[in-house]
Amino acid sequence: MQTVRLLGLDPGLQHTGWGVVESSGNRLRHIADGVISTTTELSLAERLCQIHRALNALMDIWKPEEAAVEHTYVNKNPGAALKLGQARGVVLLAPALAGLAVAEYQAMEVKRAVVGTGHADKVQVADMVRRLLPGATLKRADASDALAVAICHAHHRGSRLALARGYVPA
Amino acid sequence: MQTVRLLGLDPGLQHTGWGVVESSGNRLRHIADGVISTTTELSLAERLCQIHRALNALMDIWKPEEAAVEHTYVNKNPGAALKLGQARGVVLLAPALAGLAVAEYQAMEVKRAVVGTGHADKVQVADMVRRLLPGATLKRADASDALAVAICHAHHRGSRLALARGYVPA
Repeated sequence: MQTVRLLGLDPGLQHTGWGVVESSGNRLRHIADGVISTTTELSLAERLCQIHRALNALMDIWKPEEAAVEHTYVNKNPGAALKLGQARGVVLLAPALAGLAVAEYQAMEVKRAVVGTGHADKVQVADMVRRLLPGATLKRADASDALAVAICHAHHRGSRLALARGYVPA
Repeated sequence: MQTVRLLGLDPGLQHTGWGVVESSGNRLRHIADGVISTTTELSLAERLCQIHRALNALMDIWKPEEAAVEHTYVNKNPGAALKLGQARGVVLLAPALAGLAVAEYQAMEVKRAVVGTGHADKVQVADMVRRLLPGATLKRADASDALAVAICHAHHRGSRLALARGYVPA
């Protein structure tokens, strides 16, 4: 049975959640999770450097083989979207530069994969992440969302592998 | 007279304009300009890698000492802002990782510095860039905007140095 380490990422300029899970067939194992927080007093460019360096450091430690990033829909205002986008660009870049395939999932796909419905709230997502990954501490919601996107990727890549082997879903 | 090389950047996922000028007192000299274009068929993460690698390559060649990035206001929609933000994050990151100070200027500040009014159009900006930097070819508007932000930074850093020397503007 092939075992693969997946890095899930929930980007934000202030807090970027990350979580590493190991996927082996349809089994999942929690490896690590955490949050990268940036110093608000620093310039935007310096805060993006903090995110980039922290991502490289955690990839060095946990050696994930694939990455998945949540695609948060921002309906508030263009200013907030621009701010999130800047962090998101840096979060997508680091694993891609390190040679990892980087998948993207809509927030609704993540909720559907973890809870079973695309309209679950944050508490329901965190509850299911705790059930699916007993070792996860989830001190912060950002880490929970990052583990959720890693779980979502584990499911989707499983389906893709099954499809590649000729499995036709009902 | 201190001479400093400035890198101006106008970020975009499809096209990122760049321009290098040399500033010496109140004299400006055109060094190089161009546009980094990404392959639309690639994934977002791979396109961000293209921008990152191209920025590193041109910094290796032209050895700028400071960078300035245009802050484009996006009033269209949050989706467009998120997209621009992703490219912008990567464009801010590369020079900061290389150890350059990275300044940011609003589009209106750039226009005011180059044309004299914050409400100038793209053609007026390009015309003034050509006058101020006789060697610039400006095959694309993105390169013109990048040189304009480099010129803006040259003016502002000049004022900052003058202020640091005790000069009080009228």
